[in-house]
Amino acid sequence: MDFPAPSADKAELEEGVAFTPRFDSNDLVTAVVTDSGDGELLMVAYMNAEALALTLETGIAHFWSRSRGSLWKKGETSGNVQRVAEIRTDCDQDVVWLKVKVGGHDATCHTGRRSCFYRTVQFEDGNATLVSDGDTARFDPETVYAHKA
Amino acid sequence: MDFPAPSADKAELEEGVAFTPRFDSNDLVTAVVTDSGDGELLMVAYMNAEALALTLETGIAHFWSRSRGSLWKKGETSGNVQRVAEIRTDCDQDVVWLKVKVGGHDATCHTGRRSCFYRTVQFEDGNATLVSDGDTARFDPETVYAHKA
Repeated sequence: MDFPAPSADKAELEEGVAFTPRFDSNDLVTAVVTDSGDGELLMVAYMNAEALALTLETGIAHFWSRSRGSLWKKGETSGNVQRVAEIRTDCDQDVVWLKVKVGGHDATCHTGRRSCFYRTVQFEDGNATLVSDGDTARFDPETVYAHKA
Repeated sequence: MDFPAPSADKAELEEGVAFTPRFDSNDLVTAVVTDSGDGELLMVAYMNAEALALTLETGIAHFWSRSRGSLWKKGETSGNVQRVAEIRTDCDQDVVWLKVKVGGHDATCHTGRRSCFYRTVQFEDGNATLVSDGDTARFDPETVYAHKA
């Protein structure tokens, strides 16, 4: 499927019923992924039009990997596929929010953890440091990704 | 405060205790904002180093407005200031997640609604359309933003 061009009319963009995603100068929208069960934030990634269309058409989350420069079916290697329960977009339609049920090990991060957001930022005496929340790997990345470059 | 340059060592970036945000080619990190009470996704915005430092130093969310090209203390006009309860970052440190308590009308979207994500994407017969979740404005944007350009 193709997506219509975004309306130049702000009211139409914000209050209308047409889904007209606003891809940025790199042809991407930001995608926020949360667990459809408990709402935990799992990851943030990016989608081009092809990844977004495939996500809608298959109900399985697809992204654009900026590091690899290629389409990325999340979980294709690890088995941690994301089934989409709901998609939302924001007021100006440059972000999509996916509520998903994760398969496999229920682990979204490539480090093996459930979520990519496993560290809090602590700010004290003018310095910011990271503290782990204690979550550990649910699969062994070295084994799972062994055959990948 | 200044942020140290990100480590080129992947293990250090992903498992270390140094907060070294990875600003993109526009000098921004993506910021996901959720309600610290019920976890609702409220908005997605962007921060440059100044906005991130101010957020850490003051405990109040600051962003970089890409449309206005200026620092943006969220809620400065509307009163819907965001007090930060917790900040997290993701595995490769190019996203920050703010859990916040919103003041004022407890409304984050400039349309007056609680969240910017007030529409679901419905996919049927190869077509995607938007459906409102029924949330309505908690303040009148035309009155609140009347003196802004």
